Amino acid sequence: MTVSFDQDAGRDALRAALVARVHGKAKPAGSLGRLEALAIQIGMVTGSLTPDLGSAKVVVFAGDHGLTAEGVTAYPSVVTREIAKLILAGGAGINICAGTTATDVLLVDAGMLAPLDDHPNLLDRRIGNGTANARHGPAMDRRDFENAMAAGGDIAADLAQAGSKLLAFGEVGIGNTSAASLVAHAITGIPLETLVGAGAGIPPLGLDHKRQVLGDAFARAALGYGDNPARTAEALRQFAGFEMVMMTGAMLEAAEQGCIIVVDGFIATAVAAAAISIDPGVAGHCVFAHCSAEAGHRALLAYLGATPLLDLGMRLGEGTGAALALPIVRAAEALLRDMADLPGEHPS
Amino acid sequence: MTVSFDQDAGRDALRAALVARVHGKAKPAGSLGRLEALAIQIGMVTGSLTPDLGSAKVVVFAGDHGLTAEGVTAYPSVVTREIAKLILAGGAGINICAGTTATDVLLVDAGMLAPLDDHPNLLDRRIGNGTANARHGPAMDRRDFENAMAAGGDIAADLAQAGSKLLAFGEVGIGNTSAASLVAHAITGIPLETLVGAGAGIPPLGLDHKRQVLGDAFARAALGYGDNPARTAEALRQFAGFEMVMMTGAMLEAAEQGCIIVVDGFIATAVAAAAISIDPGVAGHCVFAHCSAEAGHRALLAYLGATPLLDLGMRLGEGTGAALALPIVRAAEALLRDMADLPGEHPS
Repeated sequence: MTVSFDQDAGRDALRAALVARVHGKAKPAGSLGRLEALAIQIGMVTGSLTPDLGSAKVVVFAGDHGLTAEGVTAYPSVVTREIAKLILAGGAGINICAGTTATDVLLVDAGMLAPLDDHPNLLDRRIGNGTANARHGPAMDRRDFENAMAAGGDIAADLAQAGSKLLAFGEVGIGNTSAASLVAHAITGIPLETLVGAGAGIPPLGLDHKRQVLGDAFARAALGYGDNPARTAEALRQFAGFEMVMMTGAMLEAAEQGCIIVVDGFIATAVAAAAISIDPGVAGHCVFAHCSAEAGHRALLAYLGATPLLDLGMRLGEGTGAALALPIVRAAEALLRDMADLPGEHPS
Repeated sequence: MTVSFDQDAGRDALRAALVARVHGKAKPAGSLGRLEALAIQIGMVTGSLTPDLGSAKVVVFAGDHGLTAEGVTAYPSVVTREIAKLILAGGAGINICAGTTATDVLLVDAGMLAPLDDHPNLLDRRIGNGTANARHGPAMDRRDFENAMAAGGDIAADLAQAGSKLLAFGEVGIGNTSAASLVAHAITGIPLETLVGAGAGIPPLGLDHKRQVLGDAFARAALGYGDNPARTAEALRQFAGFEMVMMTGAMLEAAEQGCIIVVDGFIATAVAAAAISIDPGVAGHCVFAHCSAEAGHRALLAYLGATPLLDLGMRLGEGTGAALALPIVRAAEALLRDMADLPGEHPS
């Protein structure tokens, strides 16, 4: 295990060098608070004392959910398309949040009910016309699951190779708080009662109905729960939307590519939990952007041991929280790379 | 009182229009959390449903404190100058934080021990070579106090007239957590024990010594405490640095000019408390950027009824927290101005 030993020793040495570098910056020790830990994380992920994450990208994965047939959402599936169009037109919540740092917003159609017209910011990666109804059967078959994972990986690889090592992942998909609750339940065992909230709004048949439907879906799949890579993959196939599976693939590949992954709200955090379950190495790449007002998010963050950067009571999705956290990540990157050293304590 | 009545009615109508506009945006009601309240605040301050705050500026007021002779600081007063030079050189903490939004950083020399060389980002508004030692007498005389207030007002007026209606105020000045604790104590009555913390670091003679010195200074001035405009002005004159008095004048004028004031950490919050005490109308213009790790900040924010946007454990000053909050303010501005309306609910 010589290689493994050397790798660990190399990482220990890198971490020590990063800690010393942050400590040697022109400020009282610790006075930049969480920026300092974030700077060290960025240094570890990039393997550099002077990291350059390149141009950030916000990637919004979109998909529709067969489970909406069960009355678990306040809005019908057609609204997914309206939001997607608004994102491409530049008038959605994510556009105003990403606009504060002039960050590009890419929309990935992972499988909405119907395709959109071509647009420079649209990536057509449609796996199907929405998923099947997970109350009565798997959301997707194995082939679609694998294709969605692979397509997500390709997106992340392409972005990283083009110089974007700072990727903020969000989503749009009516019904995906239900899907995320089921996936998170399967991985973590957190009770569905805790994980299930209002989503975009109280569904017409109420929250108890939503919980009942999700309980039925979970029982049907007969997966049990617990953090196990095979179970996690199967939970995604049984319950997730194409947008969630594609984001999982993107997170796994983004970690391979040495990217920082900025995780948006409840759904993106459930996806991160899945990616980390499949490859624990993803965890070190994740920056959890904010604590959503969606009911289960706080419990899921606690399970992951994550303290998000922002807590602004947002619950819109679309990557809005992740986009607002980008400047904080950028400041941490600049702390490590650009901030002056204390005179005398470091070689110039 | 017809005018007052009409003004109130006008503000009520504006607020109602702003609430309706935010509610009519393309998102579930409330789903942008604190951005929504912030958008309404920006609309109220600017008197517009489509606000444009123009180019933001970070303004860092610098000054030195005679009280440092009493051993209440971890660093000597000469460090104020070193930090100021680093800010002008672009390598300080504030530069990396403001750099994430490409925001200009202006340094105001309100009265450091010695002048700096000319620099395009330096405003020389020196009132003196640092304040007097407040343990033994007023920090400044009445004339210097008035000149500092007026100079701050002029800075804010000039910036606002040049099109910057989004002003982030920070400071640098070894000794100014002591000064801020005394000013805050005089206004709020929060015990000095609560307000006095380590500042940039534990002073060589310890925190008990710092509290003793501040207790002496407070007793010497014999002001008592309580929120009263005349007492607040006198507390500033007795205890504050030139940088704090100038920032007070800048906040008062920024409010007159219809600006949003982004308040940085403990010292800037003590200044905001003073400005609000002198003119309660300032409160509606203030956005409290972050909760500093400095001991008294949380208590002072609670006194003001303020919930800051960020809580990142920072305690560097220089406007760093305020700069990191700017993108959140910008997103709220864009929410109101640029985000699409829900179809059908609003006239286009």
